[in-house]
Amino acid sequence: MTSDLQVLPARRGQAVRLAKGQAIQIINTHGQQVVDTWCFNADDLSEFMSMEHLHAALQGIFPAKGDALTTNRRRPILILEEDTSPGRHDTVIAACDVHRYASLGCTEYHDNCTDNLHAALGQLHLRAADCPAPLNLWMNIPVGPDGKITWGEPLSKPGDHVVLRAVIDCIVVMSACPQDMIPINGAACQPTEVHYRLLD
Amino acid sequence: MTSDLQVLPARRGQAVRLAKGQAIQIINTHGQQVVDTWCFNADDLSEFMSMEHLHAALQGIFPAKGDALTTNRRRPILILEEDTSPGRHDTVIAACDVHRYASLGCTEYHDNCTDNLHAALGQLHLRAADCPAPLNLWMNIPVGPDGKITWGEPLSKPGDHVVLRAVIDCIVVMSACPQDMIPINGAACQPTEVHYRLLD
Repeated sequence: MTSDLQVLPARRGQAVRLAKGQAIQIINTHGQQVVDTWCFNADDLSEFMSMEHLHAALQGIFPAKGDALTTNRRRPILILEEDTSPGRHDTVIAACDVHRYASLGCTEYHDNCTDNLHAALGQLHLRAADCPAPLNLWMNIPVGPDGKITWGEPLSKPGDHVVLRAVIDCIVVMSACPQDMIPINGAACQPTEVHYRLLD
Repeated sequence: MTSDLQVLPARRGQAVRLAKGQAIQIINTHGQQVVDTWCFNADDLSEFMSMEHLHAALQGIFPAKGDALTTNRRRPILILEEDTSPGRHDTVIAACDVHRYASLGCTEYHDNCTDNLHAALGQLHLRAADCPAPLNLWMNIPVGPDGKITWGEPLSKPGDHVVLRAVIDCIVVMSACPQDMIPINGAACQPTEVHYRLLD
């Protein structure tokens, strides 16, 4: 069974429960939108998808189609079952937050992925102790041989999608990144909505 | 004032309080020992040195002499004031833990950096909610252009040291990594003690 297509509005977050074996398809509708993504064990939020543990499991920083995405207890929580994009998803950069926008010169509140995570979990009456490092879908952060990173524009195209399948009962949280001060969501610096659906 | 030289035994952890302006010198006595390092705000352990936030601040994955090491609230907590080594310190790999050693084939309890962190904080009657991604001093993890990592041996030599100076009152935790199943602590797979001293 496939659910209806759902919209994740620009700049907003959403938490979705997945039962073991279910999957979520996340669609980069306009092709240039980064989606910060987290995943928590539904029975124990202190276990979550962890980028630093994933790096050791993958022996690399870029997850690819077929890879298991692991938790801070080093077991798979999601499988990256499909990926129609060139596969550049960032795993080394933190979610944006109020401090990030302040450092970029923002003097008023700016929507941000960290607050979106906590708000989305709050909608399910849940609370995470912290904001884990996210899987930043479509965020293009090349790492040079000297270790320097580049804030690239997404390599994805409209309609590219990933499918993440749950290995255990879990909660996936997405944030359509509100970054509009650097071109991480494309040269236009214009965050957009994305879409998602649940797959059995 | 400089404190006496202290030993951090092989495979063990230690937490040290630093007042704002104080520093700790950590010495790779035998040259091949990785030291997983964390730093927490002494007044609020929910603020800690965060590798994923550091990557954004440095625009890179390798901190160098003079760099500020930032927290999950994106402010400096330590300055990497001195570094006599070639400067290859890992920031993308999680601390080892019981799950890591189990996956390498270990069937009994193995000392590990994650437990060392919690034990060291426990000695100060403190508790962290989680094990943040550590600054892995002298751990040599090159990242290739394809994003693949290599488990390298340290590039440091006996007596190489770093000096970390506190920007705020903080707690530095070190773990002399007990990894002896892969040559991350040198080809001999023989973890060793390191030394440290406090500097005013």
